Amino acid sequence: MSIENDGDAGDVITPATPALLQSAGSRRAFLRSSAFTLVAAGVATACRDKDDVPASRTPSTVTQNPATTPASPKSQIPVEHGGTLPTPAAGPVSATAADAMDAMHEKGIKAFPAKTAGKGNQLLAPRVEKGVKIFEVTARKFQWETEPGKMVEAWGYNDQVPGPQIRVREGDRVRLILHNELPESTAVHFHGLEVPNDQDGVPFITQQPVKPGQSYTYEFTAPNPGSHMYHSHHNSAKQVGLGLLGAFIIEPKQKRAIEKVDVDYVLILNDGMHGYTFNGKGFPATEPIVARLGQKVRIRFMNEGMMIHPMHLHGMHMTVIDKDGWAQPAPWKCDTLNIAPGERWDVIVNCNNPGVWAFHCHILPHAESDHGMFGMVTALIVKKPGEA
Amino acid sequence: MSIENDGDAGDVITPATPALLQSAGSRRAFLRSSAFTLVAAGVATACRDKDDVPASRTPSTVTQNPATTPASPKSQIPVEHGGTLPTPAAGPVSATAADAMDAMHEKGIKAFPAKTAGKGNQLLAPRVEKGVKIFEVTARKFQWETEPGKMVEAWGYNDQVPGPQIRVREGDRVRLILHNELPESTAVHFHGLEVPNDQDGVPFITQQPVKPGQSYTYEFTAPNPGSHMYHSHHNSAKQVGLGLLGAFIIEPKQKRAIEKVDVDYVLILNDGMHGYTFNGKGFPATEPIVARLGQKVRIRFMNEGMMIHPMHLHGMHMTVIDKDGWAQPAPWKCDTLNIAPGERWDVIVNCNNPGVWAFHCHILPHAESDHGMFGMVTALIVKKPGEA
Amino acid sequence: MSIENDGDAGDVITPATPALLQSAGSRRAFLRSSAFTLVAAGVATACRDKDDVPASRTPSTVTQNPATTPASPKSQIPVEHGGTLPTPAAGPVSATAADAMDAMHEKGIKAFPAKTAGKGNQLLAPRVEKGVKIFEVTARKFQWETEPGKMVEAWGYNDQVPGPQIRVREGDRVRLILHNELPESTAVHFHGLEVPNDQDGVPFITQQPVKPGQSYTYEFTAPNPGSHMYHSHHNSAKQVGLGLLGAFIIEPKQKRAIEKVDVDYVLILNDGMHGYTFNGKGFPATEPIVARLGQKVRIRFMNEGMMIHPMHLHGMHMTVIDKDGWAQPAPWKCDTLNIAPGERWDVIVNCNNPGVWAFHCHILPHAESDHGMFGMVTALIVKKPGEA
Repeated sequence: MSIENDGDAGDVITPATPALLQSAGSRRAFLRSSAFTLVAAGVATACRDKDDVPASRTPSTVTQNPATTPASPKSQIPVEHGGTLPTPAAGPVSATAADAMDAMHEKGIKAFPAKTAGKGNQLLAPRVEKGVKIFEVTARKFQWETEPGKMVEAWGYNDQVPGPQIRVREGDRVRLILHNELPESTAVHFHGLEVPNDQDGVPFITQQPVKPGQSYTYEFTAPNPGSHMYHSHHNSAKQVGLGLLGAFIIEPKQKRAIEKVDVDYVLILNDGMHGYTFNGKGFPATEPIVARLGQKVRIRFMNEGMMIHPMHLHGMHMTVIDKDGWAQPAPWKCDTLNIAPGERWDVIVNCNNPGVWAFHCHILPHAESDHGMFGMVTALIVKKPGEA
Repeated sequence: MSIENDGDAGDVITPATPALLQSAGSRRAFLRSSAFTLVAAGVATACRDKDDVPASRTPSTVTQNPATTPASPKSQIPVEHGGTLPTPAAGPVSATAADAMDAMHEKGIKAFPAKTAGKGNQLLAPRVEKGVKIFEVTARKFQWETEPGKMVEAWGYNDQVPGPQIRVREGDRVRLILHNELPESTAVHFHGLEVPNDQDGVPFITQQPVKPGQSYTYEFTAPNPGSHMYHSHHNSAKQVGLGLLGAFIIEPKQKRAIEKVDVDYVLILNDGMHGYTFNGKGFPATEPIVARLGQKVRIRFMNEGMMIHPMHLHGMHMTVIDKDGWAQPAPWKCDTLNIAPGERWDVIVNCNNPGVWAFHCHILPHAESDHGMFGMVTALIVKKPGEA
Repeated sequence: MSIENDGDAGDVITPATPALLQSAGSRRAFLRSSAFTLVAAGVATACRDKDDVPASRTPSTVTQNPATTPASPKSQIPVEHGGTLPTPAAGPVSATAADAMDAMHEKGIKAFPAKTAGKGNQLLAPRVEKGVKIFEVTARKFQWETEPGKMVEAWGYNDQVPGPQIRVREGDRVRLILHNELPESTAVHFHGLEVPNDQDGVPFITQQPVKPGQSYTYEFTAPNPGSHMYHSHHNSAKQVGLGLLGAFIIEPKQKRAIEKVDVDYVLILNDGMHGYTFNGKGFPATEPIVARLGQKVRIRFMNEGMMIHPMHLHGMHMTVIDKDGWAQPAPWKCDTLNIAPGERWDVIVNCNNPGVWAFHCHILPHAESDHGMFGMVTALIVKKPGEA
């Protein structure tokens, strides 16, 4: 879920309307032989088998003397962004295993962003009573489609994984009503919020657990601003792993200059029972982040999984501004940001490099197999002026 | 082990006298049915079985229309800290699997802090000869109780896991005498201390190994101040994993203002052959950190394990001041601090939020199972004025 | 590969000529019994067996009353750096399992730095045509010796793991010609370089894959300076895991004062199919970093693996200056630096403490087993004036 704003107090929140790679793909004249599609169907088995045999037994199709293959510098091939993809200089081409693998890789990328049922992390509008912003969430079991055709059992809030995004302003009076329709007891912990102890959501320490069929109400004044989370704190390795989690963002009363951005994006990482996901979906069903050249994007990383995920952005760097909702003493830059479970990191990207940029966890087995990209991969798309 | 001090050179070091959750629990009127205790005995098996069957087969006990369950806002229930725990609004309650699981969870929390034999990380008083502070440690095998009834084989110093805490002042002349009663050779490395090379404790690089039955003496002037460690550097994956480790703290000649705290706590994380532990114990046998409202607590995190542990504090934030004993250029804030093996991080907590606050590794499988909290969980207890 | 420079634009790049521990070892009079070498041959099996039986069954050889073993303080034994290794005070010595284990440990350390066929990360000299620096790399399969006698299948550039080191200056026009002699398609991604989108090297997003037998040319103006990488971005979990990776360093037009160092060292961490390696080799075949007392060493850490590696330096601290090629707001100090996959961290070590200093990943199972040190271990050797 993407929020476009102008940096003012009265930000207008609208769903992002990303230009899909898929539609970009349809504009492209891929120089592929028909063998690709012919081979693609029987390919999964073939490649898996290939992995089981020593690579030395794989038939070699390489040129014996590559130095004799004249290389025409890429810069001599006129290519325009959005047009034909740059293509290697001609040479002897294997039409076998390599092509079959490539076809799988291409298929995944051209499917991006793939449609799936259900969308998590949707902004939840509160109802307001006597100045209190009231959010109501129901925890229950449901089926969740993480990528096309892959259904998993989810335990989540309001049938979303991640649960609905809650956004309030520092100082707001907030009430959250939890209905428990799960077969287990549960409770909501406000991760990062410095609430009074009896609102902290830890069964047997700060409250009784909320039994199946019961409801429970939390209420507090929105404290320290920043990118926070809410999630179950009961049997949490399982309950959070299955999806009982969401973003809880507290806007500051006064924004810093660096926070005035064009796109405000929440990216929740997970690696539990649903596989490697961004906002509850695995590639190619992940959502691209879309901006225009010259715009500023804020990304709020949140890790609700069990592993670190060093997020790597291609083509541009990230300026790290906040850790767990607290401003860093000075912003600092990187292109790979290591995010541990429970951490939140806020970064700004100045979108000064147009194109479709891969954006993924750099633990490569979280992002790519011999069948192509999967899991923790998305893209930051920076559109040029006039580009649809 | 907790050290209360006033920030002066002549700090008085006393054992912490934590107000236990257990005693707090005895003051509370838990609204639990007698079914809890009746079911609790046969519960471990039942829940384990439940995990093996598809969740959809678990009998559902949920309300069909939760919206019709009137939710009374928590804020309308008068609850005082230390009194009755906040309780969900009435609703249909399952008295089966969920209750059984809750009973296990409750039992663990009410046992906290559980008594076990042995206490690690105890301050070791040196004997002083001709101005040299002499510490003597014996490495040997012993049985160690990590949580009530769980005995493991430990290899440690002075029958403690972690070994005794060593504290000296920058510039002190320090002698450490090691007696090896292990069945293997060993050596002591002073992790983080910039000692002369021949005192570095790496067999075959800086010294001969210390054979079973031998003794060995290290001596140096306490160099760079900060939170450091000492541990075996011989067959270390095993020897450190079994407990041959401890804190080695060098107080600076001159304290910075930010270092003047009321409680100075060392928290050593481990994840080896003894399970997930804080200072050698797993929840509920971990030790709470106790402070009074308005006090400042310094926590010296040290990771002697093989995995990262992002430590999450509820209710308050941590101000990070030092990394590996070196001051950060500027303090910075967080509520979740990722600590990698070999790292030390020093943080300050301004205890401005009273209550019992969960404090745990946020890799949730290191902290909770369907049987309740375990391993890397403790609490920071902030007492109000007058609270016992 | 080590680059000695004086901080000027015209740095002279020469291979390091490390003083080997091995030769240092030959100067040392090890006080070892002949039993060591006698037992060494049959030792691997014996120790492995010992691990399988409960430690309590291991015959005990310890002194019953260690306090009666007089300990002569180490400081009373005159030891000079480079002379006899410090030796424990006399005591009853077991000549059995412990000695056998020690012999294995000693053997590994005395072998360091062990010779193996092949050396990765060698500086690649470009040919220059019309002001363009042209680098040519061939991706192919070959056998790679990670430690003496351990041959693995590698997929790499120019028969090196890591691939040849590319160094250019900010603003240089750079052309990289890739020849693909692999049985799979591939592509080169310039990790950290902010190049135009069509040079980003991601098949089906920014270019067509480079098929077996084909060549491909990348060309761009060297953008943001710093410690970057190049590697495959196609079937990357496998292709990078097998060695299709290398350092891509862009020198800034203007060096900061802190960057003027005597030794500039690239250290690429990996943990894939070749085991735990530094620059493609496991201990004892890793390369020591060698400097003279008073010199400054820059280490450019790059993680091309799948796991974090907290690198711990003995005896001296590291001053962290850059993250992913970007200057940190202020340098900060540590002795253990956690490096996640895809990250680059640049540090400076002021070599003010002479000796041979262990330098290793502090996830101990990445560095030591009961057979001795292996994998992610090397040394920083600081030589005193006049030392060979």
